[in-house]
Amino acid sequence: MVWTIVGIAAASLTMSGFFPQVIKMWKTRSAKDVSGLTLIQFMVGAAFWMFYGIHIHDFIIIGANAIAFAILLIAVGLYLKFNRGMQRKRV
Amino acid sequence: MVWTIVGIAAASLTMSGFFPQVIKMWKTRSAKDVSGLTLIQFMVGAAFWMFYGIHIHDFIIIGANAIAFAILLIAVGLYLKFNRGMQRKRV
Repeated sequence: MVWTIVGIAAASLTMSGFFPQVIKMWKTRSAKDVSGLTLIQFMVGAAFWMFYGIHIHDFIIIGANAIAFAILLIAVGLYLKFNRGMQRKRV
Repeated sequence: MVWTIVGIAAASLTMSGFFPQVIKMWKTRSAKDVSGLTLIQFMVGAAFWMFYGIHIHDFIIIGANAIAFAILLIAVGLYLKFNRGMQRKRV
């Protein structure tokens, strides 16, 4: 029971992890210090986790990563919008 | 076999996802646009996943999240170092 809560807490925290970053980019209209590679890695990673979840028929993995992927899509969009032309060097 | 590769790719991408962010903060000495809440959520989330992995005796979950946690610790350290005094508003 307590372990179910730990698992749900873990999944909730990481699944919504980029939500505050989306809010921050939206409010400040800036993404200069944000790593685009980190966002891309998590976006592709969430998609792969989703496929893996479909394969092992685990609806928690599918659902959590579908939500994460949607948030990451918005994050990458905002990153491209607000980072464009500010600095060329991408890390 | 192909699904094992998808799973390993997914785990590798998300486990090392904050590595480029660490490199970027280190190189630019700046973390103004980075969301501290996102870093904290992932750090606590990785710790919870680790505990959950210990509970279900899954060494992949334990190992991947131990590495993620270590990278996040460095990320939070750099965030606090380079963000201090730059802007008060934390999102």
